[in-house]
Amino acid sequence: MFSMNSWHIPDGFRFAGIHCGLRAAEPGRRDLALIVSDRPASAAAVFTQNRVAAAPVRVSRERVPRADARGIVVCSSNANACTGAQGIADARQMAALTATELGCAEEQVLVASTGVIGRMLPMQVFETGIPAAANVLSATQSSADDASQAILTTDTVKKVSSRSISIGGRTVRLLGFAKGAAMIGPNMATMLAFLMTDAAVAPNDLQSALKRGVDRSFNCISVEGHMSTNDSVFLLANGAGTPLTGEALAEFAAAVQGVCKDLAKAIAADAEGSTHLITIEVEGSRNDAEAHRIAKTVAESALVKTAFYGADPNWGRFVSAAGYAGVPFEEEQLTVWLGDIELYRNGAPMPIDLPTVSAFIKQHRDLTLRYRFTLGTGSCTFWTCDLTEEYIRLNSEYTT
Amino acid sequence: MFSMNSWHIPDGFRFAGIHCGLRAAEPGRRDLALIVSDRPASAAAVFTQNRVAAAPVRVSRERVPRADARGIVVCSSNANACTGAQGIADARQMAALTATELGCAEEQVLVASTGVIGRMLPMQVFETGIPAAANVLSATQSSADDASQAILTTDTVKKVSSRSISIGGRTVRLLGFAKGAAMIGPNMATMLAFLMTDAAVAPNDLQSALKRGVDRSFNCISVEGHMSTNDSVFLLANGAGTPLTGEALAEFAAAVQGVCKDLAKAIAADAEGSTHLITIEVEGSRNDAEAHRIAKTVAESALVKTAFYGADPNWGRFVSAAGYAGVPFEEEQLTVWLGDIELYRNGAPMPIDLPTVSAFIKQHRDLTLRYRFTLGTGSCTFWTCDLTEEYIRLNSEYTT
Repeated sequence: MFSMNSWHIPDGFRFAGIHCGLRAAEPGRRDLALIVSDRPASAAAVFTQNRVAAAPVRVSRERVPRADARGIVVCSSNANACTGAQGIADARQMAALTATELGCAEEQVLVASTGVIGRMLPMQVFETGIPAAANVLSATQSSADDASQAILTTDTVKKVSSRSISIGGRTVRLLGFAKGAAMIGPNMATMLAFLMTDAAVAPNDLQSALKRGVDRSFNCISVEGHMSTNDSVFLLANGAGTPLTGEALAEFAAAVQGVCKDLAKAIAADAEGSTHLITIEVEGSRNDAEAHRIAKTVAESALVKTAFYGADPNWGRFVSAAGYAGVPFEEEQLTVWLGDIELYRNGAPMPIDLPTVSAFIKQHRDLTLRYRFTLGTGSCTFWTCDLTEEYIRLNSEYTT
Repeated sequence: MFSMNSWHIPDGFRFAGIHCGLRAAEPGRRDLALIVSDRPASAAAVFTQNRVAAAPVRVSRERVPRADARGIVVCSSNANACTGAQGIADARQMAALTATELGCAEEQVLVASTGVIGRMLPMQVFETGIPAAANVLSATQSSADDASQAILTTDTVKKVSSRSISIGGRTVRLLGFAKGAAMIGPNMATMLAFLMTDAAVAPNDLQSALKRGVDRSFNCISVEGHMSTNDSVFLLANGAGTPLTGEALAEFAAAVQGVCKDLAKAIAADAEGSTHLITIEVEGSRNDAEAHRIAKTVAESALVKTAFYGADPNWGRFVSAAGYAGVPFEEEQLTVWLGDIELYRNGAPMPIDLPTVSAFIKQHRDLTLRYRFTLGTGSCTFWTCDLTEEYIRLNSEYTT
């Protein structure tokens, strides 16, 4: 996923990622991305549920789903969040400047930002920056790569996933890139993801496909459970011809979900200070919603996360975290595995050799914690990371 | 509260706190407490809501509220949690051994444990330990002090609160002590509290008073949000004569709440690795429940907690944490203060001098973060602590 040599670039898209000057202290570091569809595209998006939503979220939310989107403008290092009426005007202006370059209406351009919150955007950098980015728009992988890097903040790696699938005898390409979830000093965590495809999909179908994909991917990761003001996932589909329906649409939706999962896992794996990617699998619950609630509660337990950091197969923490998820069960209905090691069976701890299991944790960066209930057929897969001293250091450093 | 020279010991109670041998590696460290009422006492209790409840919780839960309790037996260092049917039998046996010493039925004795989970109690230590403790029972402050220390685990200080109040011309004494919330290695967090009074209160009224007291105290603290298998708060009232009713009962309930608040704050202040006690005040919400939900969400945000540790007045984190509590509001309806410093007014950040505010945080161990909404008259006061590298170190150290 990370070392892909050849990306599947959807037809009719062009990209740019440049340094426009937002990162004044880091000359040359990319801070502005453009994603452009040469023809009107169906656009779908899902946004943070936080009551405190950043200006670009408020602006973009009004513009999707739509049938004639032409592009997305993204800036990193300044989130344009909690900036009041001026922030809204600035987000609109970013889109308007982009629309001028593309020769379209400003409503056809979506906008996203990530970075420090509570500071006004220095709008003058976009007056030259957006035309400069438009000037280097290209359909090459190298340009897409530039764009995928221009959206990053404290990420240590870029997150990209792409695939070509054959739907009804026609090849469809799907490309996605994401950033997050990381935060330093006064910054906010933000998760941004952008998916592009040359499939033909009606706006409402696209919105449904994205919503389903996100529910099983980005809504199944947690670094520390703090919901950002800026989280946004966009999906543009610019295919010509008859929109997908029925089984073809379902195949497309599955591919969207696959790309979303790749990106979500990559975000959890790159979480600040983490030393383990932890997959939480819950099965046999009454329904998927209860499985999700248990998985999320376990994933957000500081005691579970520090246990992994400490290479401690602490089934007491693992079991008791499930116990306070608000889902009724009896201990006898639960069995827990770490990898293939059974820690707890039907309400009682299993005899394990602690040093051996601890060594197993130390030796594996990727670990799976599996909960099996005897209540039904619900399930959920969730990704999280361990909680380390480095996370605390990164998030408590005082920066003006 | 901590340096009280003279405790208000309720009439008719005796205490003991001894080393019975559970802490084999720490000779002399107290690990067994007895709290005894010389006459039958009304007993009330509230317990963890975790679906995975420890054996002593399961046993005590069946025995309250009741009118004829005689005592509570408490052991520390072993939580008797996740120990199956044998654990239940062992908890009953702890109570039975105590009942033999007191000459009462075993149902008249309540039981609590805290410490490592998933290990069977070495029951033989109680065969001699409980008679030995019974043998030194005393109504002195020194004995109560011994008991208050015998329940501690990783606490760095004992937590005690007591008061005498005059109700209807009669003096009533109320004494409480607590332990928690701290956990190391494979141990569980546990919050235990014991309140004793010589007021006369009917069991159901006692239960109501305790429930109300706990809702505004122990249910308003959070260290890291992981709910223990063993949390228990007990209240014994052994007064003779006509039980309190009406206004006198309300005065008594207020005193119970006061003691509960003292103990709850002491627990938050003693949280592992913490450098700040943070009071979250929410006011002007639609109702108290919504205020509690917002306060709890803020208190459990790792980003809020690390901001305090980093002396960073990060109103973006403070505001956005409130935004994902699941309570509807508009940013314009919120103003936030840190102490007397207004950080955010009606949806917009206030100009502050960051170094000055940062210095203010560094200089004060106790800080108040206040949220004022313009939605109604709901309110909540909640206590939490900051999140530090030391917390991670304490909770990730691998211990067999």
